[in-house]
Amino acid sequence: MEAKRPKRSAARVASGPGELHDIIDAAWRKDSARIEEIGAWHYLRFTRGFRSVPVGTAVFGDTVVYGYPKIGRIFRLDQGLQAQFAHPFWVEEKIDGYNVRVFRQEDEVLALTRRGFVCPFTTDRMADLMDLTIFEARPDLVVCAEVVGPDNPYNESERAPADVPEDVRLFVFDLMRAGSPECLPYRRRGRLVEDFGLPAVPAYGRFRPDEAHRLSALMLELDRHVREGVVLKEDSSRDRRAKYVTGSINLADVRVSAKAVKQLPADYFIQRILRLALFMDEHGLRRTPELYRQLGEGLIEGIISAARQQRDHREVSDGFRCRFRHRANAELLMQTMQKLLGKGQVHQRRLEKEGEFYVLEFDKVLPKTTGLFAHLLRGGIIYD
Amino acid sequence: MEAKRPKRSAARVASGPGELHDIIDAAWRKDSARIEEIGAWHYLRFTRGFRSVPVGTAVFGDTVVYGYPKIGRIFRLDQGLQAQFAHPFWVEEKIDGYNVRVFRQEDEVLALTRRGFVCPFTTDRMADLMDLTIFEARPDLVVCAEVVGPDNPYNESERAPADVPEDVRLFVFDLMRAGSPECLPYRRRGRLVEDFGLPAVPAYGRFRPDEAHRLSALMLELDRHVREGVVLKEDSSRDRRAKYVTGSINLADVRVSAKAVKQLPADYFIQRILRLALFMDEHGLRRTPELYRQLGEGLIEGIISAARQQRDHREVSDGFRCRFRHRANAELLMQTMQKLLGKGQVHQRRLEKEGEFYVLEFDKVLPKTTGLFAHLLRGGIIYD
Repeated sequence: MEAKRPKRSAARVASGPGELHDIIDAAWRKDSARIEEIGAWHYLRFTRGFRSVPVGTAVFGDTVVYGYPKIGRIFRLDQGLQAQFAHPFWVEEKIDGYNVRVFRQEDEVLALTRRGFVCPFTTDRMADLMDLTIFEARPDLVVCAEVVGPDNPYNESERAPADVPEDVRLFVFDLMRAGSPECLPYRRRGRLVEDFGLPAVPAYGRFRPDEAHRLSALMLELDRHVREGVVLKEDSSRDRRAKYVTGSINLADVRVSAKAVKQLPADYFIQRILRLALFMDEHGLRRTPELYRQLGEGLIEGIISAARQQRDHREVSDGFRCRFRHRANAELLMQTMQKLLGKGQVHQRRLEKEGEFYVLEFDKVLPKTTGLFAHLLRGGIIYD
Repeated sequence: MEAKRPKRSAARVASGPGELHDIIDAAWRKDSARIEEIGAWHYLRFTRGFRSVPVGTAVFGDTVVYGYPKIGRIFRLDQGLQAQFAHPFWVEEKIDGYNVRVFRQEDEVLALTRRGFVCPFTTDRMADLMDLTIFEARPDLVVCAEVVGPDNPYNESERAPADVPEDVRLFVFDLMRAGSPECLPYRRRGRLVEDFGLPAVPAYGRFRPDEAHRLSALMLELDRHVREGVVLKEDSSRDRRAKYVTGSINLADVRVSAKAVKQLPADYFIQRILRLALFMDEHGLRRTPELYRQLGEGLIEGIISAARQQRDHREVSDGFRCRFRHRANAELLMQTMQKLLGKGQVHQRRLEKEGEFYVLEFDKVLPKTTGLFAHLLRGGIIYD
């Protein structure tokens, strides 16, 4: 684990079309931007952060949709609030789904994933997820939101929260404007969200940096409901931010992900165990035998199940299901997904009309492991 | 985790004094060998492996004591035995102490640590640990052994096995000859050990590579007694070797070491959890709630205790105690230990005559953490 910071502040941006044009040219030459063709949508995507332009930035003709800015994580409230914030901050719930940026491109409303791919699923369903009239009044807006629910193409359905029992829902947490990498100020965003009746992430109010104790009560409440955590947004012009997550979501992550031990780096697990431990310590959560059992069991059973899949040459796959308004978008998702998975494969199981929707079911089959884990299971030797 | 192999086989060695002289010259220039002065002992030590010479090799005048050869680790018997061995192999217990090479230098018998430091403690106590007459008959021999017990200067006393309740004991597992990097063949070593009545590691006989199941029964027995594991030595001229450890020792390691989370890399924990899981799977060990609880508790409590020590600015120290025949050797150990710890510190608590021994008690105080763990506890932010 190393402390990492984004190389450049997202605040230092291309100040005009001329400068941006130069950056795109240079990024293109350095293989940091490339043309994506997803169905009829052809655009330029930043595959990496380049100078002031963050990864996931998408350029459709004259329209630049900047990548959503990274938010750093703190591991302790007691020290972290005062270390990170000079002013009071707003607290919002962090929803555990996938991040999209929704914007109007000519007469369509498109949804981009975090990495800047047009998502055929989210785009297909946008009219179901929020009222799109906001783009008539404000065609320059970029709606930043989390999409969550069991019927989505990215996250395992077992991770969906209990209060989204089927399909997906969308929760807005920021607004940007096309051509700008910055988020609108908290109050301005709030007014727009209210005026246009957008579904927003739960808001928990304004806290001072010396109110770690007050925030602790909220965290314990979120922890009990296995919510992911909170995002803190400073009430100041610099819009300083930090995220902080619950112990229970880390426990769930370790359990769900131990079976992916062969894909994920060691740091992935240890960081989550570290966060869980520090959360329990700071918030005085009872360290029960049952919680310890869950952690130990999650780790061990996950690894054993991965080892057995590998040994039996079973394909490691996860089943997904989602509903579309348009059959063509389902087919486009399948094509896009195959590109995203690289050496992995997408197997479409079913695509059928059910009532008003086309229901798509598919598996992601991960590539055969060739790394250390496979080496060890084959009886390989290591010198440590 | 990456599969690592030693850069060079220890079998390709300096074939004569001329060639070795060249290697030492080059190693010296490349900062891979340096002069150690430990009390009256002045010699050359290889601080890294260099060409064919392994790390820990010590050169006293004309006498070259080669570093003990690295033994690779396998994680599965079912695949590993046949992958690694072409012939039957001998099985010996792997003792969990510290590795020494004992040899005669002029009229003294010295003990070197794995890294090639003369150990003032082990050297002081050699006559108590084994019969030294073997060096009168065979002054060229290098006795390779593990020293284990609660009263030692290197390993935490809580790790000592139950059947060495006090002081230390020595267990021979190989013989080498000065000037050669190779171990004597198994049967030849066995005869010498027997002839001179040396204390040997427990031997469990000869197994074929297709006898994973038979070896599994032994592993379960060792696991029940929280023994570290076994070393397998092929009965062939190439002397192929591998080590394989029990689940219970990995569980113990995780528990004892989680509190050192800030010094140890993430791989350290995950590898041990991985070994534990694969051991349980292969040997059909019952996956009980109690075992899971122990694993979860070991991880969490270790991290919390490390966090509290850090937060309270308490010094992280471990208490050691050992007995000497000669007071000067105890003092020399204190000096040597200070060199070994670098930025850490050795605090001598007590050095007093008790009966026939000088009893030394000391603490190792680890340097203050300045890495990621301290950063996080101070409320620092990371971008992951």
